Amino acid sequence: MTDNVSLTLDDARALSLRTLIGNGFSEAHAEVITATILAGQRDECHSHGLYRLLVCVATRRAGKVSNAEPLISDAAPGLVRADARGAYSLLALARGLPLLAQKARTQGVAALAINHCYHFSALWPEVEAIAAEGLVGLAMTPSHAWVAPHGGTKGVFGTNPLAFAWPRPQGEPFVFDFATSAVARGEIELHRRAGKPIPEGWALDSDGQPTTDAEAAMAGAMLPFGGHKGSALSAMIELMAGPLIGDFLSLESYAYDAGQGATPYHGELLLAIDPETFMGGSYSHHSGRAEALFDAIVGQGARLASQRRYEARKQTHASGRVTIPSKLYQDIRALTD
Amino acid sequence: MTDNVSLTLDDARALSLRTLIGNGFSEAHAEVITATILAGQRDECHSHGLYRLLVCVATRRAGKVSNAEPLISDAAPGLVRADARGAYSLLALARGLPLLAQKARTQGVAALAINHCYHFSALWPEVEAIAAEGLVGLAMTPSHAWVAPHGGTKGVFGTNPLAFAWPRPQGEPFVFDFATSAVARGEIELHRRAGKPIPEGWALDSDGQPTTDAEAAMAGAMLPFGGHKGSALSAMIELMAGPLIGDFLSLESYAYDAGQGATPYHGELLLAIDPETFMGGSYSHHSGRAEALFDAIVGQGARLASQRRYEARKQTHASGRVTIPSKLYQDIRALTD
Repeated sequence: MTDNVSLTLDDARALSLRTLIGNGFSEAHAEVITATILAGQRDECHSHGLYRLLVCVATRRAGKVSNAEPLISDAAPGLVRADARGAYSLLALARGLPLLAQKARTQGVAALAINHCYHFSALWPEVEAIAAEGLVGLAMTPSHAWVAPHGGTKGVFGTNPLAFAWPRPQGEPFVFDFATSAVARGEIELHRRAGKPIPEGWALDSDGQPTTDAEAAMAGAMLPFGGHKGSALSAMIELMAGPLIGDFLSLESYAYDAGQGATPYHGELLLAIDPETFMGGSYSHHSGRAEALFDAIVGQGARLASQRRYEARKQTHASGRVTIPSKLYQDIRALTD
Repeated sequence: MTDNVSLTLDDARALSLRTLIGNGFSEAHAEVITATILAGQRDECHSHGLYRLLVCVATRRAGKVSNAEPLISDAAPGLVRADARGAYSLLALARGLPLLAQKARTQGVAALAINHCYHFSALWPEVEAIAAEGLVGLAMTPSHAWVAPHGGTKGVFGTNPLAFAWPRPQGEPFVFDFATSAVARGEIELHRRAGKPIPEGWALDSDGQPTTDAEAAMAGAMLPFGGHKGSALSAMIELMAGPLIGDFLSLESYAYDAGQGATPYHGELLLAIDPETFMGGSYSHHSGRAEALFDAIVGQGARLASQRRYEARKQTHASGRVTIPSKLYQDIRALTD
């Protein structure tokens, strides 16, 4: 007997669709959520893989997330607006992306502002989708006000991720996606569950003192990465993916949640830049410069961001299968039994 | 007898203009360089203040920097190109900014790509100039390949600064400007001159080992701030302010310099976003959200980025004077004697 279940990619996809649709998600939402969940599982980002079905269904059952079709509007020559109308963000992105790409090609640079969405996924699949159009992508969102500003003691910023993708002539794009908090909130939660102390520099307790106690950290405030620099970057993300697009700060999302612990509700800003428009006829020459940069990094034994994910992706595609814990498989099956 | 010289702002301005024009800079270049140098001195960023006159004149005397008028072109609806033609970047920015602002207002978001420039100044005066147009500004440049990627041992990235400005309804904009290296290169140089050790985490020696020896650090590689996250951000800046705009990587700028130790020669990317276009009629409401964020930071005793500079600026404006060391004053005077 094994503690794991191995699924073909087709079976994993069918399981995800059945679970989401069986729990009231529209086919359109179920399709895009499934694509993102499978991408996470395929790349062995387990916290963003099939596990997320449990979160999506619990959120849906709690009546938190709508099934709305997003409203896409052509707000300015360089701006697409996608009002998610209280649904998950992914359908708004899928529906807004073609117009974003078209605008980026015409204008050189364009933005997609997603409003009124629940956001549960990593940002890398989103910037990868921009890179798949041959465009440079940048994405950012606030979350809940868990992170103290540098020199402060109380949560103001979200874990505010920033993701970037650079399309490459061959193979996968160069992609990074990082939280501007010192660590992901889930890391502290995992330490709390395991009864293990957390390293210094991750969090403050509710009195604003540095703590290595995971329980105290969850009740206190997380710290930004990189001191005042990470803190400044997090403020930028609050401003650009909040007030600039007319949506919630992490402070407002947290207040709106009113202690329920649901998925943050807010907006998201994506930028797309067309290197063909920027570089004109000399695209291939300048693209080679970027390859020289990557060679200089890899050539000295350092890793490119996302390299580990791409290795996992390759293995998954070779085997055609993903593996999840039996317990998780049973829990997912129970959602439609 | 005093070790300092106090100058009125008018006298400091006249000194800068006389020094630059007397050393062959055109009036147009001398004006914009002086404005930036005075801004640095006024805000008590001494390393970017009148001291820079010594650097500018030395670079000019070495035949490194041209007096060219920049060529501004309307490259795409969302892209302005400014070819600095081997001159300092500041005149290219000044000449390109009106079209950048106009495009941002029409398109929502627009970019200014400055090419073939020498860049000697901090980026905060540049994003402040964008904010003075009521626009959100972002700026980035590579430099010389002094900084190793996370997990690596050899310089690939520049100190690659990132600057951001958010215009506020009253008073100065929210601005940050930080190097993506752990510290500025000048900090290590100051330690070297003083014969003092540097903290761990700043640099590696030429064998790729962590070092606290400033001399060994100058010969080795600097480290990025914030581990793999700062390293990823630095890679983004290389790509967006290098290959994307058809200009040098820090690796290329360093090779081009060929050990002469001159000011880096490369490009710069600036983005401008119009919050009026983004927020439409509800600008003042959403701008209030940003103010609530700043209040939440300052209200808990943390500082806003640039707060110290603005305090210095207020004092300078109140007194109408700046103070520099007598030795520096003599050195500057000697440039035109």
